[in-house]
Amino acid sequence: MKTYLECIPCFFKQALEAARLSGAGRKTQKRILDAVALRMPKFPLSASPPEMARVIHDIVKKITGKCDPYATIKNKSNNLALKVYPKLKEKILRSKDGLLTAVELAIAGNIIDYGVKNSVNVKEELDKILNRENEAIRSEARSIFDYRGFKSAITKAGNILYLADNSGEVVFDRVLIEEIKKRNRKADIIYAVKERPVINDALFEDARIAGIQEYAEIISCGADTPGTVLSLCSDKFLKVYRRADMIISKGQGNFEALSDSERAIFFLFMAKCPVVAQDVKCEVGDIVLLHKTKSAAGKRRR
Amino acid sequence: MKTYLECIPCFFKQALEAARLSGAGRKTQKRILDAVALRMPKFPLSASPPEMARVIHDIVKKITGKCDPYATIKNKSNNLALKVYPKLKEKILRSKDGLLTAVELAIAGNIIDYGVKNSVNVKEELDKILNRENEAIRSEARSIFDYRGFKSAITKAGNILYLADNSGEVVFDRVLIEEIKKRNRKADIIYAVKERPVINDALFEDARIAGIQEYAEIISCGADTPGTVLSLCSDKFLKVYRRADMIISKGQGNFEALSDSERAIFFLFMAKCPVVAQDVKCEVGDIVLLHKTKSAAGKRRR
Repeated sequence: MKTYLECIPCFFKQALEAARLSGAGRKTQKRILDAVALRMPKFPLSASPPEMARVIHDIVKKITGKCDPYATIKNKSNNLALKVYPKLKEKILRSKDGLLTAVELAIAGNIIDYGVKNSVNVKEELDKILNRENEAIRSEARSIFDYRGFKSAITKAGNILYLADNSGEVVFDRVLIEEIKKRNRKADIIYAVKERPVINDALFEDARIAGIQEYAEIISCGADTPGTVLSLCSDKFLKVYRRADMIISKGQGNFEALSDSERAIFFLFMAKCPVVAQDVKCEVGDIVLLHKTKSAAGKRRR
Repeated sequence: MKTYLECIPCFFKQALEAARLSGAGRKTQKRILDAVALRMPKFPLSASPPEMARVIHDIVKKITGKCDPYATIKNKSNNLALKVYPKLKEKILRSKDGLLTAVELAIAGNIIDYGVKNSVNVKEELDKILNRENEAIRSEARSIFDYRGFKSAITKAGNILYLADNSGEVVFDRVLIEEIKKRNRKADIIYAVKERPVINDALFEDARIAGIQEYAEIISCGADTPGTVLSLCSDKFLKVYRRADMIISKGQGNFEALSDSERAIFFLFMAKCPVVAQDVKCEVGDIVLLHKTKSAAGKRRR
């Protein structure tokens, strides 16, 4: 997805949030916003928002000297998500279609995203998700939800590349991966995280804490963009990316980075901002399972 | 009020809105945002938001060549407000305290502010205001509402300076001015508008369309800032400002520009953004009637 002009005010919001989480004083916060402002004209709108977000978070890191301002938030998200893990499993056990419920939960878990919504109350959001009845989730607005295609691809794939989104959310991903494994025991699943800290994106350690390694191989994509920007990924990752029978991409950041990729991808995310909602033609708050096929994907990127 | 760091993303939103209303294409919109970005580091936070807003709207005007992008919106606001004028009068007739109701309506009319809330549906907002019962308006959250002081000042003042805010809202101001005149027939009222177009701020013509001249003298403050920035006002206006027995300041913009003035001022506005709400210690959406006295006002400005 290209960067929309509406993303620009949001870049400044993100920079301010990261600056504050880094413990920067008011003057340093202003200095960071000024540095972002001076960088803005050099940024082409043809690039995707995560590319600019990376630049912004680099500026914050350089000026504050703090390389992981979201560390505390990430730990908190992981712990909270781990606490509700038994409840997620129970919810799936009680449901008629465990895979569908797992898909829904994995997408709903995407609400734990400090990058987009600046001050989410994680516990409150998790309670909301858990207290929803399956029927309630299902009846929600979802103009784009290709569950049939997803289910079919799951059973056929020899290997699946699963692109992680945020910490905390990794626990929800584990639940979905467990359900996938029930449907296709032979499938090799590769779970790709970010190389270095950026916002609250999941790293190797977050995936390990969630126990992903019991069901999938954890690898790094090689980049530290909040979304898998292929031009910045490692060759090792790109090989996996090209060879995968099926790609499951979690979260808005990965959608923004990969929606123009020529690969067929299943995008699972909650549309949290009007710009993304407009791009995929859905409403803000919609749960999206979007299958972008080769033909539907744009021709601008690999 | 000084500029908060949270105002910076909002400046970009304002620039984008004004650029679009000026009919700028996507490339020109980007050029405008880039120009705003390059100007940002030179802007001191000690200045008030309307000072930067003026710079932004100047950039938009220079790049697009359109000097009044909000002209259509202003006309629409005026016409809609004029249509409801009889209903406003009827509401006041039916109420126990006409002055109080007029104050409430004048503040509520402040919702017609495209500068802060980017896409207000004027008609819908007006209907909401009119359908509210007096009791409903009164029971609303209002931590700051010095009506007693306002009422007392009205009856004592020999001359009153009334600082206009937006077009459309001018009709609501007329209703309040009519009630003021009922309480104090001898009071000379001076109604100050902006010198040149900026956002949807009221100009001489808007005040005239609302019929303000029947009850007050209309003057220009000499500036084109969305808020009365004294350092940019004319000497003629400053004389009136200094000599007024009572000043009624309408809208957030005027509060932002004048809250640190050493003059005693009655600020009437709806707190429409979290930054202003935080500054005056109220909630977003609160109807505010704030009496800043000489002693309470800051010492930074005149």
